[in-house]
This record gives sequence, C-alpha cells and structure tokens, in this order.
Amino acid sequence: MRPFGARRDRLRTLLAGAGVDALLVTDLVDVRYLTGFTGSNAALLLAADGDGRTRFCTDGRYVTQAAEEVPDLETVVDRGSALALARLAPASGVARLGFESDVVTVDGFTAIDEASAGVELVRTPGLTAGLRAVKDDVEVAALRTACAVADAALADLVAAGGIAAGRTEREVALDLDNRMRGHGASAPAFETIMAAGAHSAIPHHRPTDAALRRGDLVKIDFGALVDGYHSDTTRTFVIGPAAGWQRDLHDLVARAQRAGCAALAPGTAVATVDAAARDVVVAAGLGERFVHGLGHGVGLQIHEAPWLSSGGAGELVAGMVVTVEPGVYLEGRGGVRIEDTLAVLDAGSRPLTLAPHGLVEV
Amino acid sequence: MRPFGARRDRLRTLLAGAGVDALLVTDLVDVRYLTGFTGSNAALLLAADGDGRTRFCTDGRYVTQAAEEVPDLETVVDRGSALALARLAPASGVARLGFESDVVTVDGFTAIDEASAGVELVRTPGLTAGLRAVKDDVEVAALRTACAVADAALADLVAAGGIAAGRTEREVALDLDNRMRGHGASAPAFETIMAAGAHSAIPHHRPTDAALRRGDLVKIDFGALVDGYHSDTTRTFVIGPAAGWQRDLHDLVARAQRAGCAALAPGTAVATVDAAARDVVVAAGLGERFVHGLGHGVGLQIHEAPWLSSGGAGELVAGMVVTVEPGVYLEGRGGVRIEDTLAVLDAGSRPLTLAPHGLVEV
Repeated sequence: MRPFGARRDRLRTLLAGAGVDALLVTDLVDVRYLTGFTGSNAALLLAADGDGRTRFCTDGRYVTQAAEEVPDLETVVDRGSALALARLAPASGVARLGFESDVVTVDGFTAIDEASAGVELVRTPGLTAGLRAVKDDVEVAALRTACAVADAALADLVAAGGIAAGRTEREVALDLDNRMRGHGASAPAFETIMAAGAHSAIPHHRPTDAALRRGDLVKIDFGALVDGYHSDTTRTFVIGPAAGWQRDLHDLVARAQRAGCAALAPGTAVATVDAAARDVVVAAGLGERFVHGLGHGVGLQIHEAPWLSSGGAGELVAGMVVTVEPGVYLEGRGGVRIEDTLAVLDAGSRPLTLAPHGLVEV
Repeated sequence: MRPFGARRDRLRTLLAGAGVDALLVTDLVDVRYLTGFTGSNAALLLAADGDGRTRFCTDGRYVTQAAEEVPDLETVVDRGSALALARLAPASGVARLGFESDVVTVDGFTAIDEASAGVELVRTPGLTAGLRAVKDDVEVAALRTACAVADAALADLVAAGGIAAGRTEREVALDLDNRMRGHGASAPAFETIMAAGAHSAIPHHRPTDAALRRGDLVKIDFGALVDGYHSDTTRTFVIGPAAGWQRDLHDLVARAQRAGCAALAPGTAVATVDAAARDVVVAAGLGERFVHGLGHGVGLQIHEAPWLSSGGAGELVAGMVVTVEPGVYLEGRGGVRIEDTLAVLDAGSRPLTLAPHGLVEV
C-alpha cells in the first residue's frame, strides 16, 4: 500500500491554512516522503486542489526510476527541477505559491521568483517536516526494522567477542558496520562512533587506529539505514571488570535515561522530557558534563524534528519517533551515553531498540 | 603542514574584491576546508584583516575536537553557530559582511540579518567553493590515496571472482564496499551503484537482490572516502563472453571517454571538454542515450565545481580534479559507463584512478 497519496492529501490540508494554491517542494527528503522518489535530483509542485495539476520533476538520469517510483504523478524531465516547476506555476493557475523558506537559499529564491514571474511567493517553512515528525504505519514498520537490524548486529558483535582489547576503534566500527549490512542495512545510518578510554569522553568521536585496552569504557553510537529510515542506539561497555567510578557513572546515566523514557507521552512538552533526564544528572552534580540535548526525532533523516532539549518548543504527539540519549563526559577519563530510539504511543511510549541496558563487561 | 591558514589567506584576497570586511562561512564543507574541523555543527567569521579577529564557532559536543582540529583560531562555543557569530560582527568593526547566498536559506538570512543588527549583508556566493575547485597539494595527495584505495578494492574483487553469476547486486556491492574499507576508506564515497543486465541501462541504479546472470553487462560506479576526500570510478564488465553489441557499445563509450580525457587542459572551456566526448557518441547516432553531463569536480564533496556539461560555463584551471564519465544507456538491454577521476595539470591531465579500461569478461 503506497502511502504517498495520503501524505500529499495531509499536506494539502495545511496549504489551505497557509493560503497558497500550491507548494513548491525542493527538499529532497520531503520530495521522497511525498512521492517515494529516491534519486538525487527532484522537485514537486504540489497543487492544493489535487494530484491532477501536481507535477513531479527530475532529470534524464532518472526517467526509468521515476516511472517505477512515481507512477501516479505526471513527470517533467528537466535538470533544473525547481526552476522548471516554478516556470509552470503561472500557467497552472497558481496565484500564491508556497515555498520552503527554511530550505530554499537566498540565491535560489531569486531564481524561483524570476522563473515564476507574476506569482506571489509565500514563505511556508516546515510544513512537510512537521508532517514527517509524526510517523505513519509504513514508517514505523521501517524504523522498527532498522532498529532490529542494529540490535542484531550489536548482539552478534558482543557474542563474537568483537569488543576486545587489542582491536582498534576502526576495526571494531567496521566489524559492526559489516554486521549491520549483513543483517540487511543498506549502509550505516551515520558514521559509527566507536570511542574507547578517554575518547569516550568526546561526545562525537570518530574511530581511530587507537587500540581498545583493558579497563576502557567503550562508547558505541551507531545505527542502521533500511529503506531510507535510520535507527540510532548508543551503548557503553567496559573491557574487563568495571571500576567503581565507571559503574557509578553508568548507573547515573542509566537512571537519567530511564527517567527520560518514562517522561515520553503525547502532550508532554519536549523541554519537560529533557528536564526529566537532565534533573537526574544535575542532582548528581554533573549537569555541566551533559553537554547536549536529550534527543531528537529520527526517520528519513538521522536528526529531524522534534528536538528534545531544554530550550525546545512544542509537545510530543503520538506517532513521533525520538531518541533519548543522556550522556555524561569526564574529560581525560571517559564518558557514558545510553540511547534508545522510541515511538510515542497514544499513552506512553515503546522502545524500538531493544539491546540490553546494563553495563556489560566484555 | 596545516594548509588551512594559507587557504584563509587566499580567500581574503577575494574579500577585498567583494568589498566586505568579513565573510560568514556557514557551509560545513567550506568550514572544514578553511579550518580542518570535521564535526557536524560549526561556522566561521573570517575577518578580512587576518586571523586575529577571525572567530570559529561550534557547540559543546565538539569542544575537545575543536581544540585539536582548530588550535589556531579563537573558538566560540554556541549551539547556534552562525547566529552567534553574526551577533559578534557589529562589535568586531564589521560594516559590510559577506554571506554565502547560495547556501544560506531565506529564513536563515532573516535570522542573520536580525542578529547582526546594523551590519550590511552582502551576497558573496561561491567564494570558498571557487577556491575549492582548485586543489592544493594536500588535497591532491588525499584524492590520490582515495583513488588508489578504490583501484585496489576493485582489483581484489575481480581477482577473487567477486563479480560472478549467481551473486546479487547487493552482495557484490557490499563485497566491494568492504574491500574499500579494508584498504583504508572510512566509508564508500557514495552508495555504490551495482547494476547488472537491464539495470545497467539505469544511470543511477541502486543495488537490488537481483542476481547477476551470464551475458549481463555489469556497471559498477563506486568510490572511496579517505580523510574527507572522495574518489569516483565507473567500470563496466560482462559476465562470460561479450556479445557483439556489448563489445561495440563498450568500444564506443571507451572512445568517447578517451576523447574527453584528451581534451582536459587548463584554459579549455568545460563545454568544449563535454563536446569532445559527446561528439563521439552523437556521431554514432546515440547522442540521445547519453543523458547526463560528462563529469564534475570531486573533492570534499562527491559532486562539486567545476561542472563539465554542454551548458556549463568557465574554463579548466590547473589543479582542478574532475571526473570524465560518458555513458550510453539502451533501455531494457543494458548500458555502459566508463569513468575516471583526473587531475588537470599545467599541461594536459593525469588520471588518479588507474583501473584497466578494457571490457573485462569475468
């Protein structure tokens, strides 16, 4: 069951509120969400009155692919996809044309304005991104699969003794990435973070040729890409028996993470969710060492709305899929982050990543 | 030897011509080029009068990384990196501030305009991208390494009998990707195109679970990412003995590719290079089946300036690194593309990808 027509119809209900006759969609992720097209050059002129006057545009490399992926829309073939559609607007009866002012560049706007001569351009930022924040069933299924692939790969890595002293961060990261692809990921969802020892105190460390050593905390932040959807998980291990401070740090972050997950519910302000986890860390006197927001939406992009942070605005809605990922980083010693991807339900939430949460000594 | 200071100085010579006191650099790739910073959130306020009043900005996750990667610039820590630097501009004596109008969004411009109250914002598109089109020695070395990694991986794949009937496109793509990482790539430069049989007629086909079959053309477009630099190669194989039409098609594209490579020289218009290859295909009556431009620059991005196409403007300059990749696609039957990454020299050019060009029967 193709979900794209229903998504376009949902978007049309927003166009009426914005007072525009059509929306020029130029963000490739938004175009994919609304049409199913997965190529690297496309735009969509979404008519408010239905698919009859809606036009999809891509270039000559993608004619065959467009016929397969977007059989339900009339396709224009042109390398300058956004401008080609803007030129069609006046003759299509469009008087007011919405555009993604949070996506279109200043120079792009000038070109669109010239191409759509006589049409009034109206800023309509975030309409599609707002829809995308609430996942439909097709998306939740894809996210669930991506999370399951990541879970399986991590379980295999641990079972195979892959997180071990003597291997380099880069080797272990590659090992995990290959296991994800073996389980069906088209690629890692992002560059895997594999951070051992003092490196674990760097929130976004990139794997190096440094070897894992006995006594190291090993922070692993990774995800699988499946059908365009991303998973996002972090677990922190220790090589050999955990020292007291490592266990204490892990316990603290685990408590914060549970508090954050427990706060997920429709109607709850995103800042409240952030606070639920952050308060646990602050109470332990380590608030300054939790240097990032609590989490973010995840879907066709690894980072997307909503943003769970202390300064964030808005409330959770059933159908959102978000990460909850508190971290505490002790420079020069090590850090712990624990992260799950969860779906917000009609009441509460359900984790999609299911890897065990305890501190595993490998 | 860190090349970043010299790059900033080259950019400063352009700021004088643009009549601005400073440039707000918000494109992350441009920021990386100018500072060496590899994280996911940063901006740079480049003062025209030197590094003394130049400021780098990133967020709390990257404090340690910024200290390592950008030790030579004063760093501001703020999550809203572009706006934080825009706010500094008035007090830093900036009267006219250049911004990347081909990167900054319409909404982003409004926010920067408010944050930099009283400063005149001046459109200065493509300044850094223009510099990046001409590679310095550090970049050519990185590109050469990336190309060598890709060459080695493909040679291994062929030697191991990895391109074989019965294996799926996805399996062979994964095999090649793993070999690239084994040779030192941090990741594939882009999603590997592995297209067998009729799929080879789709220019940008994504690998599927379809098995390679005897008699198939197999088009492989792939690259390695090394230290942030991308390589880009395409070769087309045939499984078993080539049919006459396959050999003819491969010969035609190989002739076009040689003609394109031979046309590479400083001072030559990009459209002339495109024509050199395209004319060969047109003369064979297949011009309509060569549905894309001849090539593109490659560096910190897989696709960047210059653009080698029939409608492209500008001339080649020594130090540019570009692809030459004609393709001819016969829908339903198969297609051939042959692509190399080459450096433009003071006279002529030199290929960085060195895989054999003949039609290999595997």
